[in-house]
Amino acid sequence: MIKPRTPPGVMELLPRDQIAFQRMLDTIRRIFEGFGFLPVETPVFELSEVLLTKSGGETERQVYFAQSTGALGKLAESGASEGLPELALRFDLTVPLARYVAEHEHELAFPFRRYQMQRVYRGERAQRGRFREFYQCDIDVIGKDALSPRHDAEVPAVIHAVFDALDIGDFTIQFNHRKLLRGYFEGQGIAAEAQVPVLREVDKLDKRGEEAVRATLAGEGFGLASGVIDRLMAFSRVRSTGHDDALAKLDALGAGTPLFEEGRAELREVLHRLRALGVPESRYAINLSIARGLDYYTGIVYETTLDAHPGIGSICSGGRYDNLASHYTKSKLPGVGISIGLTRLFWQLREAGLIETADSSVDVLVTLFDDAGLDHALGLSQQLRAAGLNVETQLEPRKLGKQMQYADRAGIRFVVIRGDDEAAKGVVAVKDLRRGEQFEVADADLARTLLVEREQWRALGKGGG
Amino acid sequence: MIKPRTPPGVMELLPRDQIAFQRMLDTIRRIFEGFGFLPVETPVFELSEVLLTKSGGETERQVYFAQSTGALGKLAESGASEGLPELALRFDLTVPLARYVAEHEHELAFPFRRYQMQRVYRGERAQRGRFREFYQCDIDVIGKDALSPRHDAEVPAVIHAVFDALDIGDFTIQFNHRKLLRGYFEGQGIAAEAQVPVLREVDKLDKRGEEAVRATLAGEGFGLASGVIDRLMAFSRVRSTGHDDALAKLDALGAGTPLFEEGRAELREVLHRLRALGVPESRYAINLSIARGLDYYTGIVYETTLDAHPGIGSICSGGRYDNLASHYTKSKLPGVGISIGLTRLFWQLREAGLIETADSSVDVLVTLFDDAGLDHALGLSQQLRAAGLNVETQLEPRKLGKQMQYADRAGIRFVVIRGDDEAAKGVVAVKDLRRGEQFEVADADLARTLLVEREQWRALGKGGG
Repeated sequence: MIKPRTPPGVMELLPRDQIAFQRMLDTIRRIFEGFGFLPVETPVFELSEVLLTKSGGETERQVYFAQSTGALGKLAESGASEGLPELALRFDLTVPLARYVAEHEHELAFPFRRYQMQRVYRGERAQRGRFREFYQCDIDVIGKDALSPRHDAEVPAVIHAVFDALDIGDFTIQFNHRKLLRGYFEGQGIAAEAQVPVLREVDKLDKRGEEAVRATLAGEGFGLASGVIDRLMAFSRVRSTGHDDALAKLDALGAGTPLFEEGRAELREVLHRLRALGVPESRYAINLSIARGLDYYTGIVYETTLDAHPGIGSICSGGRYDNLASHYTKSKLPGVGISIGLTRLFWQLREAGLIETADSSVDVLVTLFDDAGLDHALGLSQQLRAAGLNVETQLEPRKLGKQMQYADRAGIRFVVIRGDDEAAKGVVAVKDLRRGEQFEVADADLARTLLVEREQWRALGKGGG
Repeated sequence: MIKPRTPPGVMELLPRDQIAFQRMLDTIRRIFEGFGFLPVETPVFELSEVLLTKSGGETERQVYFAQSTGALGKLAESGASEGLPELALRFDLTVPLARYVAEHEHELAFPFRRYQMQRVYRGERAQRGRFREFYQCDIDVIGKDALSPRHDAEVPAVIHAVFDALDIGDFTIQFNHRKLLRGYFEGQGIAAEAQVPVLREVDKLDKRGEEAVRATLAGEGFGLASGVIDRLMAFSRVRSTGHDDALAKLDALGAGTPLFEEGRAELREVLHRLRALGVPESRYAINLSIARGLDYYTGIVYETTLDAHPGIGSICSGGRYDNLASHYTKSKLPGVGISIGLTRLFWQLREAGLIETADSSVDVLVTLFDDAGLDHALGLSQQLRAAGLNVETQLEPRKLGKQMQYADRAGIRFVVIRGDDEAAKGVVAVKDLRRGEQFEVADADLARTLLVEREQWRALGKGGG
């Protein structure tokens, strides 16, 4: 006998949690499609030489390789010198997107808007809340040669729509801009090659505290003047509250280098278009401390935080990049995108008690008293299904109490009962376990009645898929 | 520069094919949920010692193993003698289900009805139409200790609803019964241990022809009398056409052993309940030649074929088994289930020209003439999205002809145009690329008008998600 268990670092859910998770996936997909993003799915594994174009680095150490049994034997015989196994599991959805767009470049229309919601794999150290397999839900807009900064404004509108629909509490989409940042550093006389190391230090403000960071920036290696350090600190503390305040704070930064002005103009355009898109101003803010993806992003960067749960960190991040697929094609493919790490988010929300147990995906349990009633129960169930309801039929007679208890525990809302009295009258009794009510309805009216009830319940925001 | 390409044996789709595929997945899921099946997802990899409980065999040779980079180095150093890598990719959804049910046995309600639609992995030889990664869409009902044969009748009702909804042509669900088969063999004096080898030979009738099979069964090793062979041949040729014919053909088999009678009674019950479930009798038939899963199934077995495309083979198969998880638990867990190999089916349907290019998931393109119109276009797009339409906004002005051409190629149905004339009148012009019509509508009525059009189009069965 083998103990049944999953490997460490995966999240496997019982059905009611899986239903809650699936509803979040469905909601995200609905919003992504609403904004005109097209679905893409890629294989879980890529050719290693295609996936691992960058040498070394943390990411590569975390890669999972895959081998079929035959190839594995050969590998073991030959030792490691033979190089990497043929296949590697994707560790994000960005590299597969780059490969996909480069491979299908001449079959796609640009700007290419795609969403992808699949699992990715990282050989993380096993640890609570760290996942080796997790969902990412990504959108990206990829241009050919160029991509207007206007797309940068649509992305936070998507973020807003997603988290508004997920209904997990107030949130703020924060942005910064790499050109603004680099331009400001330039203006302070910090050379291009020193900018990233300085930013890394400034990024540690929260963790190390201001005194420690100041000491490092003033010390050997950086040697920044204290006036410069003052201004960097002040810059990185800039946060806006509201639309006009964001514009005012941008104005208050004073004149800067051409790069700085380019970044500021793009941020102003984003703010302007967010208003046209009707995104509430309480939902977005400028935060000039955001330093995400230093090696990768070249324009706007986004982070999203839950107002009541800052400790969860960013629940949706991304930004603008200059060239998606330089390893695969000579075409220049600039883009902008975001990613939601849904497995980790779901886990954190559950830990924080922010996810209620979902109702069942089953709307109706059609009960059964005795074998003679089975054919009627089967026919009635099919009628309800044809109307769009999810129905489980009790196929073997059990005591009504048992059947009720089962429906209640399973989170099934409606229990349909047809005893001798009801059968004689041509009606069924319906027990509504959510409202705690019972009513009688004619067979022919049952489907419509339950559908109306279900819609009303959903309109009240009381769950349901 | 690395050539961007996928590994052999995977199916990666361009967006419009992906939309068609996604619609099939959505339809299958809707039907599975309609019959009260609950969603389960399992990790792509399992611990090797948990997944590979059976020794040797074709399946194990096809397994993909996974290793993170660090572990792989160790494996290569130590050679093959160290045993298998820690992780193996699932090769079907049945073994993960067995592990899941055994692991969560005390948290699940039985009969446990689950659906699972995920990809599985097999190290097949690379060959046209053979996939190393493919979707399976499974349902199973798992009982504890016992499971009524009534569940065997609900399963073909699900198959019927799925393929009716997928609308890929007429199909027939065929069934046979292992007890009927084994009971009949018993009655012919064929010993238990000879039954499977004899069945394997009978199963080759189509491939080898009757004469060759007769010769084998009469020859050394089997040594069956020619009268017995005659009856086996006649038995395996039994096919029914229609409900009453199925019952009559079962009657005509004559009296048999207790096992035979048990199988016949169960088939009769299935036929009876299928009628109560309203499944059209042209959709199901008895076919006593079906010998699927000899080592695994113990009761009813199902195959489904497209009437006009028998060459595609079974598009949905399954059956009843006695004990799902004997490797993981002492509990007896009988079940019944089916599987649809959707990747292969989609590929075959496309090869046979049975899948039309899908319309885009995007319903509406909001066009743009000049920068001054952008804010209005953004606001209008958000209004349409709030009403449930999928909308792409043209963010940079282009010639109208280019925007039209883009919408047409992308399969977007509605193009919304707002030139100076329309703006002055407070209307927009809508070009309906499906109907080839153009009309004007007030801004405020646009969403409702397009929704109604979309619903009418769908009601005509003209595609759409």
